[in-house]
Amino acid sequence: MTEASLIVIGTELTRGIIQDKHTQLVSRELTRLGIHMRSSVVLPDDGSVDAVLSSLVKRKGIIIVTGGLGPTQDDLTRSIIAKAFSRKLVEDPESVEFLKKRLGERFGGSNIKQAYIPEGFDTIPNENGTAPGFYGGTEEVKVIALPGPPREMEPMFTTYVLPLIRKWLDIPEEERDEYSSFITGESKLEDLCELFGPGLDWGTRFQDYRISLYVSGGSKEVRDRAVQGISGEVGKYRIVEGNLEAIDILRKTLLERNMTISCAESCSGGVASDLLSEKPGSSRYFSGSVVSYSPEVKMRVLGVPETLISEYGTISVECAKAMAEGVLKATGSDVAFSITGVAGPDESEGKKVGTVAFGFASGNGETQGVMVKLSTWGRLSIRRRASVAAFLLANSYINGEDVESIAKEWKWI
Amino acid sequence: MTEASLIVIGTELTRGIIQDKHTQLVSRELTRLGIHMRSSVVLPDDGSVDAVLSSLVKRKGIIIVTGGLGPTQDDLTRSIIAKAFSRKLVEDPESVEFLKKRLGERFGGSNIKQAYIPEGFDTIPNENGTAPGFYGGTEEVKVIALPGPPREMEPMFTTYVLPLIRKWLDIPEEERDEYSSFITGESKLEDLCELFGPGLDWGTRFQDYRISLYVSGGSKEVRDRAVQGISGEVGKYRIVEGNLEAIDILRKTLLERNMTISCAESCSGGVASDLLSEKPGSSRYFSGSVVSYSPEVKMRVLGVPETLISEYGTISVECAKAMAEGVLKATGSDVAFSITGVAGPDESEGKKVGTVAFGFASGNGETQGVMVKLSTWGRLSIRRRASVAAFLLANSYINGEDVESIAKEWKWI
Repeated sequence: MTEASLIVIGTELTRGIIQDKHTQLVSRELTRLGIHMRSSVVLPDDGSVDAVLSSLVKRKGIIIVTGGLGPTQDDLTRSIIAKAFSRKLVEDPESVEFLKKRLGERFGGSNIKQAYIPEGFDTIPNENGTAPGFYGGTEEVKVIALPGPPREMEPMFTTYVLPLIRKWLDIPEEERDEYSSFITGESKLEDLCELFGPGLDWGTRFQDYRISLYVSGGSKEVRDRAVQGISGEVGKYRIVEGNLEAIDILRKTLLERNMTISCAESCSGGVASDLLSEKPGSSRYFSGSVVSYSPEVKMRVLGVPETLISEYGTISVECAKAMAEGVLKATGSDVAFSITGVAGPDESEGKKVGTVAFGFASGNGETQGVMVKLSTWGRLSIRRRASVAAFLLANSYINGEDVESIAKEWKWI
Repeated sequence: MTEASLIVIGTELTRGIIQDKHTQLVSRELTRLGIHMRSSVVLPDDGSVDAVLSSLVKRKGIIIVTGGLGPTQDDLTRSIIAKAFSRKLVEDPESVEFLKKRLGERFGGSNIKQAYIPEGFDTIPNENGTAPGFYGGTEEVKVIALPGPPREMEPMFTTYVLPLIRKWLDIPEEERDEYSSFITGESKLEDLCELFGPGLDWGTRFQDYRISLYVSGGSKEVRDRAVQGISGEVGKYRIVEGNLEAIDILRKTLLERNMTISCAESCSGGVASDLLSEKPGSSRYFSGSVVSYSPEVKMRVLGVPETLISEYGTISVECAKAMAEGVLKATGSDVAFSITGVAGPDESEGKKVGTVAFGFASGNGETQGVMVKLSTWGRLSIRRRASVAAFLLANSYINGEDVESIAKEWKWI
């Protein structure tokens, strides 16, 4: 695999005045081309790029340098690059013409410096500034120099540099599959990846409500088999193809079926409602919810019978079912779900932290319920995973499946 | 001048999946302390930090390393740092205790790795995650290792690392005041800082539900006068001393008065409920809420009269007051508030995006209401600022103030 490094020069960056944007852009786009980003270093305008560049040119690969191409005396990039390749700096006639046109009568003095490039290098036009970029080097090591300001650098990178690199390397895009995994912890997921696809190249990224899972290497068939293995281990609907949130899956089903949903939340305290109403147009499928935090609200607003609570407690399948039926009736939605459990940090009603019951009700189907035990990675994590689990199960419920048997088979939650 | 380098480790960064935020934070804060940032390098999780660290430890200075402290196999930072200083990795008893408490039954296996630090090093507590940081080294070269996720790294850096570096370098504790600012945009706040305290050293940090405002330089009197100026400009309760969320202010009042609260949310869709129930023990003051997203739920669950909605619309002071009264009655709480408005992206009922009405009701006081127009920085921002505004106004309402006159004087919201 080809390697690349980025050097971002700017004292405004090393003083923390502005935020570097080049690292993410360059890293993302080169990764997409199958290039390994070896490093990205931010340096001040003080010539320290000299040492970094000297060390990088000893290794095969592409070096991109941004910044330090302006006309002022601390912009040393062009002479340091020339030195690293033992070239002279020469006037580039095209750049002189360009600068004359661009600067008019202001052309002259230190501006002329910007028309100099290392001998044998080629220029990259800059449509939004005065300093052109340039590139060149040897068969093994190539340097691409671009101006620092994002509004100059970004279009040059996209329009000229990426096609140039594609031409140099003539390599196809890497085949990489993306999945979204729900409710499992990141380190457990990584263990499972190793177990089911030991030779493959796995990557995970924790996000608030899911973990993104990337896999490359091997054939598509081998990758698919590995993911099916993990999926079979953790249980139904826990790993889906693509870049998706659990709420996206539920939303799609609701929109396709033209149905409205409501929910009754206890331990999740509004997290599920927040997600259900997050996107524009959510009033098409979300009627509303009741956050029945206290037992009184469960009774008064949702109509959960006091006798039911005293017999089973509020953290029970029975209470969850009554809550789902209650919010369905109160809001008049087509379908409803409920979440009631122990977010912690303390036990409640003799139930362990992480115990969560879910209820599901609809106008034309049987009410269902199930209780699970989530791992205890903190209150916020339980609230979020409970909401995600509710979305997955609500989706199954709408699709006419048996929610209890699905949730009972879930592992590593 | 002392020099420092930063190494940011994370394959998500060198693959361009996420944006590095540590470079700017560390560069800005160390520059403020008079330290010269020599470089900041972003590296993948592949052990390449080894070569970079070996070269940096040859020079005097401070090296900060973030990332690669997790329990997974590609997290190599701790062993590479130990090697660079020729130390063994040893189990830190305090960290073991901390991890046991934090992870509960999940403690064990690869997690134990997180309790290992180089011999002779000290740990830095991590209040938002499992991997503690650590620091140590020689008189001439010191390394500070911190976890990668910004929500873990940032508070550790501010609370522990900066004071540690001041101690090392014998930099006296600077007098710096901290304030929390609500609902104003960051760039407007920065303009106001310049206007009211032009000679002072201001800093802002955007957080999800507030902006932290820091001021140093000048005398305490000059700083106070500047902040009072800004505060007078934006209006009551919008800038408070200390590191506080708006929900913290309301929570404190509720606990002191031993009162329970409920809310009816429309455009905020559960965001306020989420915050009200976020902290352990919130059942002491939070009864519950109704997310009355559809007009039907406003009528059915909250008892808002259909005639009121057809006369004034749902985005009106009248509807907000009826919603607050409705949720007060439904939940039986001591006090209640409501939020109804246009989160966007489209106008609704002829009201502009950002228009939000609030209602306030209690068992023994007059119902109040007010309508404001928030700036339109996106749907999420409106949902959050509407919730924060509701908390500030609910707090005033409980304290017997006139909510309408407070909100009407708010500027730059």
